[in-house]
Amino acid sequence: MENAIYKRIEDYMLSCMSDTAHDKDHVYRVLYNALAIADTKAKVDKDVLIAACLLHDIGRKEQFEDPELDHAEVGADKAYKYLIGIGTGEEFAAAVKSCILTHRFRKERPPESIEAKILFDADKLDVTGAMGIARTLVYKGGVGEPLYSIDGDGVPTTGEFDKAPSFFREYHFKLKNLYDRFYTDKGREIARSRRAAAEKFYNDLYAEVVETYAMKKSLNIKP
Amino acid sequence: MENAIYKRIEDYMLSCMSDTAHDKDHVYRVLYNALAIADTKAKVDKDVLIAACLLHDIGRKEQFEDPELDHAEVGADKAYKYLIGIGTGEEFAAAVKSCILTHRFRKERPPESIEAKILFDADKLDVTGAMGIARTLVYKGGVGEPLYSIDGDGVPTTGEFDKAPSFFREYHFKLKNLYDRFYTDKGREIARSRRAAAEKFYNDLYAEVVETYAMKKSLNIKP
Repeated sequence: MENAIYKRIEDYMLSCMSDTAHDKDHVYRVLYNALAIADTKAKVDKDVLIAACLLHDIGRKEQFEDPELDHAEVGADKAYKYLIGIGTGEEFAAAVKSCILTHRFRKERPPESIEAKILFDADKLDVTGAMGIARTLVYKGGVGEPLYSIDGDGVPTTGEFDKAPSFFREYHFKLKNLYDRFYTDKGREIARSRRAAAEKFYNDLYAEVVETYAMKKSLNIKP
Repeated sequence: MENAIYKRIEDYMLSCMSDTAHDKDHVYRVLYNALAIADTKAKVDKDVLIAACLLHDIGRKEQFEDPELDHAEVGADKAYKYLIGIGTGEEFAAAVKSCILTHRFRKERPPESIEAKILFDADKLDVTGAMGIARTLVYKGGVGEPLYSIDGDGVPTTGEFDKAPSFFREYHFKLKNLYDRFYTDKGREIARSRRAAAEKFYNDLYAEVVETYAMKKSLNIKP
């Protein structure tokens, strides 16, 4: 992609993310993940892929303000209008729009083009491994959700059968189940190389919590 | 400690923490950590220790609203007044006050009584291992600080020489240096058993970030 076009699209992305502190770091990681996957594929339109990566989350602000909205749909429309506006042409803008529309996990709307599949995988990679753990904890801190829930006996649960939101629940309901949902071999390969880091952290944290709460009994206080 | 007194002090603690969502889980972990350490010591006034653990962070709200205030000082005074008010006696209230005043790491104000040393260690234990990582990430999410900083070449730093706040910086400036600052053998022993979990997570996350940003060069975009 030409330097000037990249800078222009990057600036637009940054302007859309100005209120969501550090999501831009996520955008760059997705872009770099996507380039790593693209390197293993013969026929990829890299310019479409780069634009789609830069712009994939520009609908987040609208979804945050109105949770009824889908940031993939909003972002796809915004990206299309923006790209038409700067003169990239209808075909290019439509290809980018289609990638952004399908980057979110939705059974009824799977990614179709190779660029769309790469964006999907690159975005999911940022929820794997230690990064997936770190981003989830940062998110929980932002919305004020706890690390774990406490059962009727005052003991922390594993999260596996919880209804109330917590980090442990998110690990079991989302983080640990990502690793087979990749469209590209390279995406799956990177994901699997990071899997053990996420499992280790959950297991370490759970073990520490269990060890700590084991002393509750010596308090000898009745509920 | 008598059930009724425990419940009363616990309720007061909960009322002080009503606006800081999940800090109460931290309070219980500190209490249980303290009991584990107390089990290894012959002469510990468990009632003083339990009250000090429950009340050690009740000055947090005041410090949050006015960062000039020290939550250890505010909490020590609040705890003393509260305990005098419910009739525990001056000696008991003063012993608890002293523990709370010295629970924060300050060279000029080290913990003196055995109960104060146990509270100090039990509180520091909650910053070790996977729990220390988790709490730091949750905190960073709450205040909107990033995971890492980017250097002039657009590459993430290790955090070791950073000035700007980030999770990586906090790891190097605080988390990795805790493990020798314990007053009790049991506290040091638990801390050291958790050290590898924290190191592993930082190293895993840093390796993932480095692997990801390595693809930046193939973008071929000039700054």
